Amino acid sequence: MDKPGLFISFEGGEGSGKSTQIRCLENWFRENGRDVVVTREPGGSPGAEEIRTLLLTGDPGRWDAVTEALLMFASRRDHVERTIRPALADGKVVLCDRFADSSVAYQGYGHGLGADYIRNLWALAIDGFKPDLTLMFDLPVEVGLERAGARFANVSAAEDRFERMGIEFHQRLRDGFREIAASEPERCRIIDAQGDVKAVTERVIATVQECLAGQGV
Amino acid sequence: MDKPGLFISFEGGEGSGKSTQIRCLENWFRENGRDVVVTREPGGSPGAEEIRTLLLTGDPGRWDAVTEALLMFASRRDHVERTIRPALADGKVVLCDRFADSSVAYQGYGHGLGADYIRNLWALAIDGFKPDLTLMFDLPVEVGLERAGARFANVSAAEDRFERMGIEFHQRLRDGFREIAASEPERCRIIDAQGDVKAVTERVIATVQECLAGQGV
Repeated sequence: MDKPGLFISFEGGEGSGKSTQIRCLENWFRENGRDVVVTREPGGSPGAEEIRTLLLTGDPGRWDAVTEALLMFASRRDHVERTIRPALADGKVVLCDRFADSSVAYQGYGHGLGADYIRNLWALAIDGFKPDLTLMFDLPVEVGLERAGARFANVSAAEDRFERMGIEFHQRLRDGFREIAASEPERCRIIDAQGDVKAVTERVIATVQECLAGQGV
Repeated sequence: MDKPGLFISFEGGEGSGKSTQIRCLENWFRENGRDVVVTREPGGSPGAEEIRTLLLTGDPGRWDAVTEALLMFASRRDHVERTIRPALADGKVVLCDRFADSSVAYQGYGHGLGADYIRNLWALAIDGFKPDLTLMFDLPVEVGLERAGARFANVSAAEDRFERMGIEFHQRLRDGFREIAASEPERCRIIDAQGDVKAVTERVIATVQECLAGQGV
């Protein structure tokens, strides 16, 4: 019988090494014979990528928190309907750089709209659709922003609107991700993002294997 | 004492003559000594105008109904916070070409999401903020589409995505606007949009005067 689709999201603050770890896990799944779709939010479908540009460029105050949340869920709806659900229906593994937990963390905790407000929007926009597994990459805020800053230093028109929101904002994000993980311990696993890439990848693969075993895959 | 702000929205199907009547009512208010802001949806603030382009250009199937509703309310949030509320706080008259009732009609009735679904989003996005008066321009669907078609015939990159959605869609819109008006008869007044411009303007001004008298303005 064909294997079922598997949807894994990668969450965490700026500079937490998600992108690198997605590539490592992509390779691991391919070596294990799975078709993999790597995608990202905001974006991941043609329409959602257009909304991404509105969200990630310009002044930090370009949108208020509610408008930002609505744009995030508009792009997410398009992404889910046109990229993620079709791939899962084909039995693929979908690895997504950020998903709805980022809205809970950024707009709910970071901007203070509250987690419940974002979860209501989550229900309206995509019927509360969730990943099978969410890996939350955790590291001290200062370390993450330093890594992210190095990445954007020489880029013009950088997608750095969120990086520029201040250290208190990013501390609220980290606390938010930890509270989310505590509230859904089965789905959300915290990964210590410190140390070298290989050590983190080993933690990721061990967590994924445990999840797959739990699903009997 | 300064007069309070007044928010009037203009609703109706394509080609119902809203834009012309907004200009007539703008002149009438100015002759009566009021400051007037004329605005429109989707759009009406710099950010909302950028979202407008995503909504009104491209294939009819570019966005599904839910994504479309989320984008509409994202642009509306920006418009309300950055254009409408500040103008009302200054005691101005705000005349708006379409507002949230259009989302109830287009996405709720036209695309079948249901009026309650859109009203939930309305509550989340802008706390259910409403116009003081809504004028709903009503005329047979065939007449309206013929007028709208003449307007777009020679325009390239036209904002005609909704005009091209088919006559059954536009019939559901008209029925939707009528049901909305029936459910909120104090706020929503149906204006017969047939006949010459001057006759319609007289109906509009009579309705506005009645509303102002009711407010003791």
